[in-house]
Amino acid sequence: MTITITAFERSPDGGKGLARDTRVRWALEEVRQPYEVRLVSFKAMKEPAHLALHPFGQIPTYEEGDLALFETGAIVFHIAQRHAGLLPDGANPQGANARARAITWMFAALSTVEPPILDLGTARLLEGDKPWSAQRVPLVEDRVRNRLGQLSRHLGDADWLDGAFSAGDLMMVSVLLRLRASGLLDAYPNLAAYVARGEARPAYKRAFDAQLAVNKPPAG
Amino acid sequence: MTITITAFERSPDGGKGLARDTRVRWALEEVRQPYEVRLVSFKAMKEPAHLALHPFGQIPTYEEGDLALFETGAIVFHIAQRHAGLLPDGANPQGANARARAITWMFAALSTVEPPILDLGTARLLEGDKPWSAQRVPLVEDRVRNRLGQLSRHLGDADWLDGAFSAGDLMMVSVLLRLRASGLLDAYPNLAAYVARGEARPAYKRAFDAQLAVNKPPAG
Repeated sequence: MTITITAFERSPDGGKGLARDTRVRWALEEVRQPYEVRLVSFKAMKEPAHLALHPFGQIPTYEEGDLALFETGAIVFHIAQRHAGLLPDGANPQGANARARAITWMFAALSTVEPPILDLGTARLLEGDKPWSAQRVPLVEDRVRNRLGQLSRHLGDADWLDGAFSAGDLMMVSVLLRLRASGLLDAYPNLAAYVARGEARPAYKRAFDAQLAVNKPPAG
Repeated sequence: MTITITAFERSPDGGKGLARDTRVRWALEEVRQPYEVRLVSFKAMKEPAHLALHPFGQIPTYEEGDLALFETGAIVFHIAQRHAGLLPDGANPQGANARARAITWMFAALSTVEPPILDLGTARLLEGDKPWSAQRVPLVEDRVRNRLGQLSRHLGDADWLDGAFSAGDLMMVSVLLRLRASGLLDAYPNLAAYVARGEARPAYKRAFDAQLAVNKPPAG
């Protein structure tokens, strides 16, 4: 069955790979599943046809036969459940525990680490012209640093968050990539190296290139 | 094997049930699994013994034999995977699709609906004494209303988000409960009724009473 995902017709980041379809593309590349992409304009995202797929009017969505999903975490998890390569094999008790811990890191990336990072984007961009911006941004940066410090201490000198690379790392690296422009990651060399390890994966590179091809079509 | 979770020694909400251990208690009550609770002080949450369980120094955690998990979403998902009652049975293709959609709502509650609600708490409480508070709170309220409007349109006059009650509803109701004091839910009668349906479940009541017993010990 064909897998079809949605992505921005034109990503607000101009092809830096920060739009959430990159996470889904990366997951599909890790498990070597081909997929098609339907591009959606900002206008179309708020219209009934897309809202029927995604109640919050966002991308990505995921369609495969009768199944339609939204929410990046759920889509990546679904891909990881269906295909080997993104979660430890849960067939034996030890593997089942490792699998539960990898899933934990998916939730941690999305529920604990990403929210202050998104807040920082809001503080800088959406509220960048507000009179409180200069005073408030440092507060939000401190909240991000608090999480980065905790994550850095946990990671130590390990390559990945819990044993082998997993969907938890895919999600955490994707979340941390949003911080690149801020320079905040530079204070945590082990996290910067962790992000670089993620980006160096061939599957990530293929996913990045695929979204770039949409957002920066070759000249000519 | 005994299940042990952690909870605040004294919850910041004084027993309103908004601390995240209530979500895990509720899940365990829905699937009728007994559990023990280890109370943790704010000081102990930041000490090595607890950080070894929860890298971000929060509650709840979940221990069962060799398995140690953190992150509410991951814990509730783990409980839902292990025991019937919180996710559609995925044995047949139709059930598998329904199960994937229920998991989608767990992620939607935590990644899409809860962040602006937590931001509102931060704007009102943590930043309530800042000079920008009066101007900024309405902006954050609008972001919450945007999500509530979308969720309300999706729910319509259904009882639950997708068919029967699931871990997705457990998480969404728990997230929306944080809004009760704000009055914002009142503009969406179907969401207010949805939350009330969640609270009326015997398993929720048992979970709520259990956390209340910790936070408001009976006089005498």
